[in-house]
Amino acid sequence: MSAVQNVLFIMADQLRADHLSCYGHPYLQTPSLDALAARGARFERAFVNSGVCGPSRMSYYTGRYPSRHGATWNRVPLSVNEITLGEYLAGQGRELALAGKTHIIPDKAGMERLAIDGASELGVLLARGGFTELDRYDGHHTPGEESGYPAFLRRHGYDSADPWTDYVIAGVDADGRVVSGWNMRNVHLPSRVAEPHSETAYMTDQALDFMKRRGGQPWVLHLSYVKPHWPYMAPAPYHQRYTADQCLPLRRNHEELADAHPVVAAYRQQEESVSFSSDECVRVVRPAYQGLIRQLDDHLGRLFDYMESAGLMKNTLIVFTADHGDFLGDHWLGEKELFYDTVQRVPFIVMDPSVEADATRGKALADMVESVDLVPTVLRALGTPGPCHLLEGRELQTLLHGRDGATPWRDCVFSELDYSFRQARILRGKTPQNARAWSVRTDRWRYVYWLDEPEQLFDLHADPDEYQDLGRSSAHASTRLALRERLLDWMLRGKRRTTISDEAVEKATNAHKRAGVFFGQW
Amino acid sequence: MSAVQNVLFIMADQLRADHLSCYGHPYLQTPSLDALAARGARFERAFVNSGVCGPSRMSYYTGRYPSRHGATWNRVPLSVNEITLGEYLAGQGRELALAGKTHIIPDKAGMERLAIDGASELGVLLARGGFTELDRYDGHHTPGEESGYPAFLRRHGYDSADPWTDYVIAGVDADGRVVSGWNMRNVHLPSRVAEPHSETAYMTDQALDFMKRRGGQPWVLHLSYVKPHWPYMAPAPYHQRYTADQCLPLRRNHEELADAHPVVAAYRQQEESVSFSSDECVRVVRPAYQGLIRQLDDHLGRLFDYMESAGLMKNTLIVFTADHGDFLGDHWLGEKELFYDTVQRVPFIVMDPSVEADATRGKALADMVESVDLVPTVLRALGTPGPCHLLEGRELQTLLHGRDGATPWRDCVFSELDYSFRQARILRGKTPQNARAWSVRTDRWRYVYWLDEPEQLFDLHADPDEYQDLGRSSAHASTRLALRERLLDWMLRGKRRTTISDEAVEKATNAHKRAGVFFGQW
Repeated sequence: MSAVQNVLFIMADQLRADHLSCYGHPYLQTPSLDALAARGARFERAFVNSGVCGPSRMSYYTGRYPSRHGATWNRVPLSVNEITLGEYLAGQGRELALAGKTHIIPDKAGMERLAIDGASELGVLLARGGFTELDRYDGHHTPGEESGYPAFLRRHGYDSADPWTDYVIAGVDADGRVVSGWNMRNVHLPSRVAEPHSETAYMTDQALDFMKRRGGQPWVLHLSYVKPHWPYMAPAPYHQRYTADQCLPLRRNHEELADAHPVVAAYRQQEESVSFSSDECVRVVRPAYQGLIRQLDDHLGRLFDYMESAGLMKNTLIVFTADHGDFLGDHWLGEKELFYDTVQRVPFIVMDPSVEADATRGKALADMVESVDLVPTVLRALGTPGPCHLLEGRELQTLLHGRDGATPWRDCVFSELDYSFRQARILRGKTPQNARAWSVRTDRWRYVYWLDEPEQLFDLHADPDEYQDLGRSSAHASTRLALRERLLDWMLRGKRRTTISDEAVEKATNAHKRAGVFFGQW
Repeated sequence: MSAVQNVLFIMADQLRADHLSCYGHPYLQTPSLDALAARGARFERAFVNSGVCGPSRMSYYTGRYPSRHGATWNRVPLSVNEITLGEYLAGQGRELALAGKTHIIPDKAGMERLAIDGASELGVLLARGGFTELDRYDGHHTPGEESGYPAFLRRHGYDSADPWTDYVIAGVDADGRVVSGWNMRNVHLPSRVAEPHSETAYMTDQALDFMKRRGGQPWVLHLSYVKPHWPYMAPAPYHQRYTADQCLPLRRNHEELADAHPVVAAYRQQEESVSFSSDECVRVVRPAYQGLIRQLDDHLGRLFDYMESAGLMKNTLIVFTADHGDFLGDHWLGEKELFYDTVQRVPFIVMDPSVEADATRGKALADMVESVDLVPTVLRALGTPGPCHLLEGRELQTLLHGRDGATPWRDCVFSELDYSFRQARILRGKTPQNARAWSVRTDRWRYVYWLDEPEQLFDLHADPDEYQDLGRSSAHASTRLALRERLLDWMLRGKRRTTISDEAVEKATNAHKRAGVFFGQW
């Protein structure tokens, strides 16, 4: 019997792996997450399947790669045909509660085509990506009716039709003017909301209230913070918790700009990269970013303390991860997308309370993990493994419960990019059909295949910071070839035969004679 | 203005390209189809996207490759998420009428999941693959309620609960015993039904009746014959129309059996291949197969004569093709599947009545054509091109209307195999997830990539009969590599972002500021 009664799946938005102290940050202390890692296990090499919110999250929520779930960028709806974690749980009579962000774009056209009433129970479930919304809050837009946050702010005296814009992401400059966190030059200022009224505090409260309401009843909760994603406005005192000198050194050099990959060069022309190419921007934003992370850790400490006191640490599987990282000026880039480890590698901590997981408790595991592993892992923890003809990830219990050396595990991870919606596509003169790229990352290599553009290759052993693109190095042609072969193999194994289970295939094998069909008899 | 008011899409089942006289058969005369080719154009190099009924047809009906539509074998339901030709036409207020076979397996699980009432208009349309069924008749099973054929037979005196089994595919042997066409040894005998009561005659009558009922009203009809597919029982006089010496020579040699590809070798162990490996079987079946084709041609002549008299030849786009070929003992194989031209190449005749098509009238075109081209071609003929984010085929009008030499066209075609349901998978000890293969065929090469099995390669210039597998020839490693690269490129360009149109992507490009999101501003 599994000891797991509840699941708490925590996601931070745009959080780089190297920005937790348990992952080696020398100045930014994250004691709550470090303690969680000590009680569970920490994956040193966890990677997302896309370096941007929407497709990455859809891989976390469906257990399938972007090429399969089809929601390849933030504005692409998740097809009604895709089955999410929430729907798997609903099939077991459980709910997947949501506090925070999902980035689900409902497939309205698909629902209309199939005459699914958006107001019906099914329609609501599909439009919400399978979640039961305690409080959906996607952040970086003025929150809508689905979140209680604007009303909460107004109750606490932030008198505005749009308190998020006027208070949460606003500050007051030296001249007493209210200025916006959309302009990154202002994020050294404290947010105009008091810390207990910030987004991170509010969403932690939602999770705490939910756990209290559930009492001893089992639950599965996705607690999905919108921070440290931009706008990078931190409430006091976190806005000044770190100085610019307490941030990680910039990972960039001038050689990167010479003969750069044409699509990377196009990304560098986008506004966020131009802004982050200045040291001034980096020295203002990075301390605020770190402050937001420290704040998050403090609230997680509050949450974990409650869980401890309520006995929930003994029967709750906790996963903490992020949807992708943030360049913050590394590689002369801002924001996310593309395929550097800065963006692709995320923290991934799992605290499995079961006795079997004692095998790895407190350890840092080097096995490669991907976003698609989340659904299989949660379903396995709850005792009802998902369908193997749909799920493309693996159960992390295989690692957490002590892997037999003979059990194979993956030795590379895959990620995808659809830049159809970005200025970089326009700059490259491409169509929405050929603005795509795929990455294969092994222990040693980062390889990127671009449609109708040159390849990229980085030797992560010789060049861990990914400065030197060997995509056109003739000495590395055979390496690139071998990685293209991996990509081909992976693409071909994609799970696209979705309408019949493997068990049904087994049953139907050679079934023609039972069906009265006798072809081939002489 | 297009001259096309109606579309007649005729499919034969399991008809090899080389079994029409206009495609070079020296003994089997097919004057009606030859005349159609003379009035239209004939594609010399038309290929299916899968060498088996279900997936091939789903590519014809959706305009998408099997890896995308997901119905990878006969028993795999077509996902409710896939849009068929019938649904595209329904969106224009037109119906796609069906007389005959579709091999659609309804996605009952998908409909149940999405609470689509199978009895509703939508449910019926989806379950029928978008067709309005005049008479659905999939053949090679006892027909169900959806076809009027059993009742028709009983009305004509074939007194039986199952007149198909007892009469249509039965014969009477020299000892007066009723014997079954399931046993191929019996197909030299005439069917127990009179020719006018045969499947081919019946279905032609359905089409004729439909055209007459429509009067001058526009229509789109899929006339889909179940012949010359097994059981190979032909009615008199067609059962003896050809002698064994009037059949094509067997395309096989003993070298093929030495060191054969392991999956091909496994197919050769299946019953149909064992049967067809004997000359006796070949000499009995091939004449009957040819008789069934000649019968089909005679009925098409009847149909085309009516159309001529009714003025329909002037305003009807006619397409004639097949879902795949039939080995009939070639390569020591029976039935279909795998990737030889015998099975992959099909007849493909298009009669476009519009003036623009005069450019190619009566010609044999060498450009490569695939099943996925059907939907774009029909939609273009009717004046409402389909969505380019879903359709993977091309409009054949580009060729039929006289291609400018500067207009690019494809130089290879792709086909797919899922042998999960076959004995060959069991013989190879594989799972339902890795019993797959893909073929790339160019002018010169036939390349096959198998999951976890050796490659195959044939040099079609030096070895047009595909006897010598160069899959392990070290001299051809670079050729195989180049073809794997083509396969990778094709797989990556697959249209899997199905929930948003390219036009919507264009509109949403750079739209964040309009949505109130200002990331990246300093």
